[in-house]
Amino acid sequence: MNSIITPTYAVHFNEKGYETLNKHLDKSNYSKIFILVDENTHNDCLPSFMGNIEGDYDFEIIEIEAGEINKNIGTCTQVWEVLSELDADRKSAMINLGGGVVTDLGGFVASCFKRGIDFINIPTTLLAMVDASVGGKTGVDLGPLKNQIGVINQPQMVVVVPEFLNTLNERQLQSGFAEMLKHGLIRDVKYWNTLKKVTSFDDISTLIYTSVSIKNAVVVQDPTEQHLRKILNYGHTLGHAVESYFLESQDHELLLHGEAIAVGMILEGYLSHKLTGLPKAELEDIKMTFLNRYKKVTFAKSDIDAILSLLKFDKKNSHGNINFVLLKGIGDPAIDVKVPSNLMLEAFEYYAE
Amino acid sequence: MNSIITPTYAVHFNEKGYETLNKHLDKSNYSKIFILVDENTHNDCLPSFMGNIEGDYDFEIIEIEAGEINKNIGTCTQVWEVLSELDADRKSAMINLGGGVVTDLGGFVASCFKRGIDFINIPTTLLAMVDASVGGKTGVDLGPLKNQIGVINQPQMVVVVPEFLNTLNERQLQSGFAEMLKHGLIRDVKYWNTLKKVTSFDDISTLIYTSVSIKNAVVVQDPTEQHLRKILNYGHTLGHAVESYFLESQDHELLLHGEAIAVGMILEGYLSHKLTGLPKAELEDIKMTFLNRYKKVTFAKSDIDAILSLLKFDKKNSHGNINFVLLKGIGDPAIDVKVPSNLMLEAFEYYAE
Repeated sequence: MNSIITPTYAVHFNEKGYETLNKHLDKSNYSKIFILVDENTHNDCLPSFMGNIEGDYDFEIIEIEAGEINKNIGTCTQVWEVLSELDADRKSAMINLGGGVVTDLGGFVASCFKRGIDFINIPTTLLAMVDASVGGKTGVDLGPLKNQIGVINQPQMVVVVPEFLNTLNERQLQSGFAEMLKHGLIRDVKYWNTLKKVTSFDDISTLIYTSVSIKNAVVVQDPTEQHLRKILNYGHTLGHAVESYFLESQDHELLLHGEAIAVGMILEGYLSHKLTGLPKAELEDIKMTFLNRYKKVTFAKSDIDAILSLLKFDKKNSHGNINFVLLKGIGDPAIDVKVPSNLMLEAFEYYAE
Repeated sequence: MNSIITPTYAVHFNEKGYETLNKHLDKSNYSKIFILVDENTHNDCLPSFMGNIEGDYDFEIIEIEAGEINKNIGTCTQVWEVLSELDADRKSAMINLGGGVVTDLGGFVASCFKRGIDFINIPTTLLAMVDASVGGKTGVDLGPLKNQIGVINQPQMVVVVPEFLNTLNERQLQSGFAEMLKHGLIRDVKYWNTLKKVTSFDDISTLIYTSVSIKNAVVVQDPTEQHLRKILNYGHTLGHAVESYFLESQDHELLLHGEAIAVGMILEGYLSHKLTGLPKAELEDIKMTFLNRYKKVTFAKSDIDAILSLLKFDKKNSHGNINFVLLKGIGDPAIDVKVPSNLMLEAFEYYAE
């Protein structure tokens, strides 16, 4: 599988990935290499990863607690303090081995430590492989507000090793798959139709490659999200608000990121049908596809009010307007669409039908 | 006084500065403008600043506590939370009105909020005018370790209004003057000789202009400090360690930044004499010039040990080596010089003589 190489970063796959990583470490002469893991990837992925490293380096392992709830400035400060204690310097590097929490937080920690050290992402979840680890968005949450604090900064490289997916359960895989379905919705109706038929994740490597290619093609054209890159936020405006609300609420089961944006993609599908001409049949296709894969979530009226009140913190907003990415049709997005709030309530009714 | 314009940012002076700022605010259509101040600049500088703003904007004032001790991630988190509460979005901007703490911290806060919003620096201390506010180094301290966390990111513009210096006392002015003396030492022996003779700060505008020009000429050639920019750290390797130690210590009076690097420039002058050929007469000139302006600091043996142990956190270090900027002569620096620790002890003896 060929590497995907852009002007600012490259994504490598499988054996080729390890080969490129080994060459990079060999030539970079890092003073020290820090591997950031959580307790899961420490146990499940680190041994296999270390078995594929050829050189003899001064590695230090830094473990953080797993879970979105720990993706915050407090955890960053702990990691910065450990880096200082372990004598990290500007010529040190950080390898982020984990899911989106590890790659997002690790990328931010590295980007700010002594005003920036090199980092490398080794995503271990499907979600991180197709989304979080590529594109240079680093950051952490601020209370319930997702990714409010961060910078855009590219890793030295991303290495995708689909073998790590064997450490995940079905629910985690489905969560990542939601982002892949999004890639179809915003860019490629054929890819959407292919993905809909996927029933097993055993041969997913080629699809991961397609998803990373779609994301990269978008990011390269607009790295700092001035225009085109916004399309990657389809389903995320309402999806993030749903995710934030469930993360903070004591009474609700935690929703995985993909599960939340699956809800968001149905809701924003409805808005698309009403505002940007998404045909009814395509809306129904979107709803059925997601409800076949992801358990339907029940929202009380008070839940919906709380979720909508979180929308004002969305990063795409400006001048008090909430800007949505909607669809004119599957594969054909529209950016910066303003949505009246009564339509959002209707969207939740449509979802519940 | 002409503006200093570089490819990535510009520094404007006096009335021309306000004029350019007013034009910038007029054309930028910011959704909201946040002015970051501390309690001092809130009282002493904000009224005059607001009097010079022509348009009618949606301003919000955010006040932080004054002092280096508050330049930390905790304060950043407070400001980020206030920005969120006050509905800041990606099209909002931040004006940092204050000394180095406000411009360093404010620049970092803005650079990370929703992955980066515009910011403008209005330095109100001599130190911030000639050093902190220009060059794009943003950041905060991590415990006693100065500027460990930050990013390099340029403001939209810097506006230098020397009138704000009237709000400072003699000691604060002298602190900023130490950085100007450093500009002479690393780049221009004539400028050094001019500065030595300065006895009043009444007509300092032209000298500020020269200092900003020297700093900018260096930064433009090497914005991310790979080589040339390191010369700006002359006096700062030991000076920062002295400053950090006095900041944390309960038993010592607080040293201002310029006072600490004045000590550092004498100490590193001694190292320069021993290692890079700084002539004895020039070393004596440096020592006398600084001791004439800055009160001599007394260091116990235990102080010196603690200060030297902080050196390992210096950002210029790599691979366990402490890298110094030294002088071959006044105006002629050498970078990446390794220094044996016994020489550092001798340097403190020379300082105490």
